[in-house]
Amino acid sequence: MTRNRRILIKTLPEGTLTTDCFEMDEVEVANPGSGQVLVRTLLLSQDAANRAWMQGATYRDAIEAGQVMASGAIAEVVASEAEGLALGDIVWGDTGWQEYALLSGRSVQKLRRHEPLSHLISLLGVAGKTAYHGLINVAGIHAGETLLVSAAAGSVGSIVGQIGRIKGARVVGIAGGAEKCRWVVDELGFDACLDYKDTSLALPKQLGATCPDGVDVYFDNTGGDILQAALFAMRQRGRVACCGAVSMYDGKPRPGPYGVPGLLVVKRLKMEGFIVMDYAHLDADAEHDLTMWAGDGHLKVVEDILDGLEQAPAGLVGLLAGENRGKRMIRVAEPS
Amino acid sequence: MTRNRRILIKTLPEGTLTTDCFEMDEVEVANPGSGQVLVRTLLLSQDAANRAWMQGATYRDAIEAGQVMASGAIAEVVASEAEGLALGDIVWGDTGWQEYALLSGRSVQKLRRHEPLSHLISLLGVAGKTAYHGLINVAGIHAGETLLVSAAAGSVGSIVGQIGRIKGARVVGIAGGAEKCRWVVDELGFDACLDYKDTSLALPKQLGATCPDGVDVYFDNTGGDILQAALFAMRQRGRVACCGAVSMYDGKPRPGPYGVPGLLVVKRLKMEGFIVMDYAHLDADAEHDLTMWAGDGHLKVVEDILDGLEQAPAGLVGLLAGENRGKRMIRVAEPS
Repeated sequence: MTRNRRILIKTLPEGTLTTDCFEMDEVEVANPGSGQVLVRTLLLSQDAANRAWMQGATYRDAIEAGQVMASGAIAEVVASEAEGLALGDIVWGDTGWQEYALLSGRSVQKLRRHEPLSHLISLLGVAGKTAYHGLINVAGIHAGETLLVSAAAGSVGSIVGQIGRIKGARVVGIAGGAEKCRWVVDELGFDACLDYKDTSLALPKQLGATCPDGVDVYFDNTGGDILQAALFAMRQRGRVACCGAVSMYDGKPRPGPYGVPGLLVVKRLKMEGFIVMDYAHLDADAEHDLTMWAGDGHLKVVEDILDGLEQAPAGLVGLLAGENRGKRMIRVAEPS
Repeated sequence: MTRNRRILIKTLPEGTLTTDCFEMDEVEVANPGSGQVLVRTLLLSQDAANRAWMQGATYRDAIEAGQVMASGAIAEVVASEAEGLALGDIVWGDTGWQEYALLSGRSVQKLRRHEPLSHLISLLGVAGKTAYHGLINVAGIHAGETLLVSAAAGSVGSIVGQIGRIKGARVVGIAGGAEKCRWVVDELGFDACLDYKDTSLALPKQLGATCPDGVDVYFDNTGGDILQAALFAMRQRGRVACCGAVSMYDGKPRPGPYGVPGLLVVKRLKMEGFIVMDYAHLDADAEHDLTMWAGDGHLKVVEDILDGLEQAPAGLVGLLAGENRGKRMIRVAEPS
């Protein structure tokens, strides 16, 4: 029998997520029942949202202690009792942190083979599509506008800023640490990047100096104090695309930013939350444009791949601390 | 010479506005210079926004101590050196709290004579148009949806809820005090009205019981804890029209509601601030529909008129405490 190494949630985190919250075990692989597929995990996607799932039910069920840690992944079908899925097919599904997963055939999405496969998670996966839909279809960026994006070195932020440049906006990032900010400007081509950890000049002052005429679109990946600073820096009729709140996933719920709703009224701001699935009907546009831009060299695909399932806990903890550059993934196995 | 009684701001309020912040004086009326009109104030509009103007510059300059208290009003031209304005014309302008005002001809808007004049402030004035544009053009209410509106007995809220009913929505108000809530249901025809001052059942629980399937549109006149409770009660893809934040005008700035931006993302909510002037290009629609509905008896126009300029300070203090029913005005003089 094939053995399946899995990483389970030992205890749900109360505050900051640590690797102690997880433990590995090993079980035997079962055969798929009717309508099921057995898949071998190839590449796990690591996302700040994984941490949010531990806080309670959201757009998916809450994750609980004792379960395999949930995660979207690219996987390969190794046995199928599901219609339309055959041995060797590449699929996207919620395998969780394990080498093999039994999934309902209906819950997985068949993918075309693509070289490299990792682009199906980064450029053409949730990261790229979230960036595209949020900036184009939620915020509606226009040439000549000032775009501000937080977590600028992250999987989504790094693409948002590059799309903004392609669309003719002036792009200002926010990231943690001088070195990371330099990388955002030098490698990704942002016009500027503000260091929210800079103790010599607080973020609101940096925003005032860098965006003296204000911000038209703020793409929010962080929430919290950074969102608050951005709201105060918005121009009249500015738009805020609410994509995530990585600053708020670790720890207790906190009050929202000052200025809600007062600033929204006075400046006539629009704040809108979205999830990438909401725009699935426009995914063909996203795939077309992203592929073209990457092919033209206008958009750099930045990936941060760790090798081995056992890297998953430290990988996620590090992601939440902001250590990644671009899209973090865990390579569990190579395709056959 | 004609004498002009005026009410000045003696001291700007730090916290709750009191009548001590104002003082009356009397001066002589000056003649209009070139481009100016001298107007006689007929009806002052009293609005929660008057208090917000004392907090600093917004969409208008901040109000300062020593100045006549600012206020929009209906007035009658008594002398004109401005093109297009003649003796006896009825205008809308920022007269402030005084019997006569010298205004730039460009700053006033000529109104048609209308019977009763007060409808130009209530139904067809800022109150009615704010309700109309916020519900129709910002939130986009649909038949069968659940509409929640705060300050439901107030000038804007009382009209918002009635428009919601006319449009086929289920309408739930929020107001302070059992007696006021009964009035909202019995007089204005709301389906229900929740008492946020009820100490036996907190507002979030009342919302859960009254809107078990959640709220599609929340029209926010209050901000603060009521906005927070509403956000938690929203359905997926709900819309929040941010119209004002009366709960936050008296006192120091406070943090925003818990759940911003987390709930916005998870529920894909849209929050949008607006000011009635933003929709001036659609005022003809508002005037047409509001006039028709009032004429048909579908919409009750509720006015709360106090007599005499000297009532203005107590009138505004009372408005901020929620004592009014419908649109509060101060009648300063009858038209000639």
